Amino acid sequence: MPIYKAPLREYRFLLNELLDFSQYAHLPGFADAPADLVDAILEEAAKLTEEVLLPLNQIGDREGCKLENGVVTTPTGFKEAYKTLVDGGWPALVADTAYGGQGLPNALGVIFNEMVSSANMAFGMYPGLSHGAYSALSQHGTDEQKKKYLPKLVTGEWTGTMNLTEPHCGTDLGLLRTKAVPVGDGSFKISGQKIFISAGEHDLADNILHLVLARIEGAPAGVKGISLFLVPKFLVNEDGSLGNRNGVSCGSLEEKMGIHGNATCVLNYDEAIGWLVGEEHKGLRAMFTMMNEARLGVGLQGLSQSEAAYQNAVTYALERLQGRSLTGPKAADKAADPLIVHPDIRRMLLDIKSFNEGARALLVWTALHGDLSHRSDDEKTREFGEDMMSLLTPVLKGYFTDRGFMNAVDAQQVYGGHGYIEEWGMEQFVRDARIAMIYEGANGVQALDLVGRKLAQNGGRAVFAFFKTIDDFAAQNQGDEKLKPFVEPLIRARKDLEAATLWFMENALQNADHAGAGSTPYMHLFGVTGLALMWAMMAKAAHERLATLNGGDKAYYETKIKTGRYYMEHVVPETATHLARIRHGADPMMSLAANEF
Amino acid sequence: MPIYKAPLREYRFLLNELLDFSQYAHLPGFADAPADLVDAILEEAAKLTEEVLLPLNQIGDREGCKLENGVVTTPTGFKEAYKTLVDGGWPALVADTAYGGQGLPNALGVIFNEMVSSANMAFGMYPGLSHGAYSALSQHGTDEQKKKYLPKLVTGEWTGTMNLTEPHCGTDLGLLRTKAVPVGDGSFKISGQKIFISAGEHDLADNILHLVLARIEGAPAGVKGISLFLVPKFLVNEDGSLGNRNGVSCGSLEEKMGIHGNATCVLNYDEAIGWLVGEEHKGLRAMFTMMNEARLGVGLQGLSQSEAAYQNAVTYALERLQGRSLTGPKAADKAADPLIVHPDIRRMLLDIKSFNEGARALLVWTALHGDLSHRSDDEKTREFGEDMMSLLTPVLKGYFTDRGFMNAVDAQQVYGGHGYIEEWGMEQFVRDARIAMIYEGANGVQALDLVGRKLAQNGGRAVFAFFKTIDDFAAQNQGDEKLKPFVEPLIRARKDLEAATLWFMENALQNADHAGAGSTPYMHLFGVTGLALMWAMMAKAAHERLATLNGGDKAYYETKIKTGRYYMEHVVPETATHLARIRHGADPMMSLAANEF
Repeated sequence: MPIYKAPLREYRFLLNELLDFSQYAHLPGFADAPADLVDAILEEAAKLTEEVLLPLNQIGDREGCKLENGVVTTPTGFKEAYKTLVDGGWPALVADTAYGGQGLPNALGVIFNEMVSSANMAFGMYPGLSHGAYSALSQHGTDEQKKKYLPKLVTGEWTGTMNLTEPHCGTDLGLLRTKAVPVGDGSFKISGQKIFISAGEHDLADNILHLVLARIEGAPAGVKGISLFLVPKFLVNEDGSLGNRNGVSCGSLEEKMGIHGNATCVLNYDEAIGWLVGEEHKGLRAMFTMMNEARLGVGLQGLSQSEAAYQNAVTYALERLQGRSLTGPKAADKAADPLIVHPDIRRMLLDIKSFNEGARALLVWTALHGDLSHRSDDEKTREFGEDMMSLLTPVLKGYFTDRGFMNAVDAQQVYGGHGYIEEWGMEQFVRDARIAMIYEGANGVQALDLVGRKLAQNGGRAVFAFFKTIDDFAAQNQGDEKLKPFVEPLIRARKDLEAATLWFMENALQNADHAGAGSTPYMHLFGVTGLALMWAMMAKAAHERLATLNGGDKAYYETKIKTGRYYMEHVVPETATHLARIRHGADPMMSLAANEF
Repeated sequence: MPIYKAPLREYRFLLNELLDFSQYAHLPGFADAPADLVDAILEEAAKLTEEVLLPLNQIGDREGCKLENGVVTTPTGFKEAYKTLVDGGWPALVADTAYGGQGLPNALGVIFNEMVSSANMAFGMYPGLSHGAYSALSQHGTDEQKKKYLPKLVTGEWTGTMNLTEPHCGTDLGLLRTKAVPVGDGSFKISGQKIFISAGEHDLADNILHLVLARIEGAPAGVKGISLFLVPKFLVNEDGSLGNRNGVSCGSLEEKMGIHGNATCVLNYDEAIGWLVGEEHKGLRAMFTMMNEARLGVGLQGLSQSEAAYQNAVTYALERLQGRSLTGPKAADKAADPLIVHPDIRRMLLDIKSFNEGARALLVWTALHGDLSHRSDDEKTREFGEDMMSLLTPVLKGYFTDRGFMNAVDAQQVYGGHGYIEEWGMEQFVRDARIAMIYEGANGVQALDLVGRKLAQNGGRAVFAFFKTIDDFAAQNQGDEKLKPFVEPLIRARKDLEAATLWFMENALQNADHAGAGSTPYMHLFGVTGLALMWAMMAKAAHERLATLNGGDKAYYETKIKTGRYYMEHVVPETATHLARIRHGADPMMSLAANEF
């Protein structure tokens, strides 16, 4: 069975040494999370994920979910595990204290979610989607709705879903047909079919709150006629008890490539009673609240599968004896050397390791800035936080999941033929990781969001703030010889990213296809530059610690620096290729007529 | 159900226009393959693959093979399809006429195999492995063995397998334990366990010829004590009839990520009777005959899944209406534009299309040179043919399967959520393609073969001959303005490849890990350069045809040129990144101790 150990040392490094969470102790939420409490939370989360969720990951994959007479049964053990999660109060971690939450920063939330998803991605989607529903309701619901529904989402007694996709409409929500007819008492009757609804029906919770996009009768066509509705599986009485079953049912479960432990449902709405969330015809805006949060959550799924696959591949590479080192036997007393002696095995492992640590830093850094955008007492900090959150969300979603998948593939490759066999669990990481590139907006949509919306917002304020962050770091550390191997590649990457950004600004206005053509290379260029910044910052923090240490944890910081150097030397050079692609513009793609493909 | 149409127009372009097969009409085998006969063969092959094999691809994936009481049953329809293959005489296509073969060039063989594998990769492995067994026996067997066994392999009445891997030994065959004890009458008793044996046991043929690596009692340890044995499933009487069942049985079938239609067996040898093939203790050399051939066959599997996935993705992109073009509606009368209007969708499709056509050209070019290495009447041509075959085999295996897999992933991505659902068949291409990166020597092993063996052979003769081919082309066409967009990037790629080659020559001798560290980037750099050469040659051929055409097939050549330009502009720039990685050498990987991972 695959292993997983929560990378607690990494989290501590990020929270205490790189980002120095103690500096925010005066802010709401942070005040309730002193280092020793955070440490205790991390330890408990590690136990939950390693001991409860991990053992169910392969079971979930093999058994999948079952639909019988409209009832969906989750795999063996999922129900008990979900109860453990609820009993531990985990769904409340970052929820508002007004509804029973602990109100802790989301920077801790993403750390918890990474652990859950590393141990069992399919399971993690149940509470993950609930949190998305929580966010949409808490930001767009009426006070009455919040009071009625949020506490149950916060305890985890109820779960939530997002209902966007229909058979003929995925990315293009303007095409959706599910309709809402006003009943007259403020409620609506919702009818239509939704597909690909994760956690859409299951046996883990007493009730499920479906957040459903639909078109009110007579509403304008296109995205401007879409509204968001809350449709509970069971209607909720005034006293909070459960009433009648609503007119929503699971028509079938999708047979998928992976995440078999999660129930991906076709949901049929047949005059189901629903209530408007937010304003009429402005459902898309409300849904984007959920989507943006979900996108960060999907980005971390990419990281999570990369991390889980990595830990197993390292273990295998250390144990499996096969062949001899190119420079002579390293384990002469054994029949062969362990795989880890081979540079090409190390290349794959370091591609993954250097990504994982860099991506985790960027994830927590971004989530922290998301927290500061709400919680800081300084306006500039709030603005910077909002800018980073908005700018980096598509990068984290797209780059993390593209790389996370490829990393799972590389980790599988370390196993040779054994990686292809189900028993070892490596191919499950690949199959599970694959969906993260697709859902919550396929990665091409993320790239377009980045290039088409996020770059231009507020006159480019966010991207220039990002450049300035790099420039400030470079200026502060340019004289430092020890940091040169980090600062120089960072500056080169930044230069390529800036050149690409300017190229879009100069060319995309006259032909929007130029933006589309370079969008995916740009998203990757951005991701690499973001990780390069994190690695430069981590190297600095590690060098500072090393200067004060004698033995002890020294090895940790030395490894950190070596891993970062690998990233700078082996990964960062790709920025030049991305820039070259972007600069060729749209002609290479658009010169072919549709029938020439 | 996924579609597949054999790309006959592409094959005709390659055979008749790019490579001008008619120039070899005086050579053995080629003489029997005039253009009209080849055309008829291609048409028949297209029918077989599109009508018989394609419909069984998803069935094979879903049903898989079954083992009951030692008997393996292949999926519904496989047995009938195999009979159709045999009745059509297809296994005889490139086999020696002395044993009932048609003796046609292998350049046609790889074309046939690409079609079979595109339609049904798991099925194609049954005849594919037989052909490997045929080659090993025909090159290393005694006359008596050849007479006894080859005709039945050529008709396809019997199939063959390769038995290398054991639980503790994959790449490192020196560790193998299966033992062979001389009986005294020239035969041996073979005992041991082999795993991952493709087509190891099945119901398609009357007999299976297992080619098995084993160690004769008392043989030296390591690879120098390995011999190759022929172990038939049923012993064969003097008169050719089948005798007793031999002591080899299928212990279990592996549960795999893909290629479910092929029976991947654990084979248990319990004093099975076998006969030495080739010399004692020189089994590895004989096995490499099979392996090299198999590697080309696996390389084309990468291409085949890329092609099949591409055809489906294009169809979907043309039909699926979703969103609007960034430059304004293109199908204003419809609810949305087809996906094909989006530059990022085209980017993915053109990444695949430009690879497929370039890779197919390099595959046929390489196979042709393999043919010429045996059949040419000119010594220099034979030598060049041998050099290209030897040099490019690891490139085709490694680069084609890495890219082929990624292309299947991209094609799946075009489908959005539907790509993740089993029904559409796109995720099967991904799962099937994945194995090609692993078996017949994992791609890391191919990269090491290229850098560690193939570069140095005969003092670098092959790689310098490859450079000279590029130089000659560039010199002949440098003044041609129309070819400039091809010649210039080709020269840049060649320069990067040469710089990398020289870097290895200068550095790898003092530290072999430098070769290992850069081997995979080098293999990709080589692959891209090889395809760039093919694209330059194809662009030249297309321009020459265009100059003589008025209407008619003009569009075909124009599309060819546009597709090639995409490759030159979007793919070739990556050579610089590969070179940068190679030049960093082994330190980025080797500076970490094993326990630092």
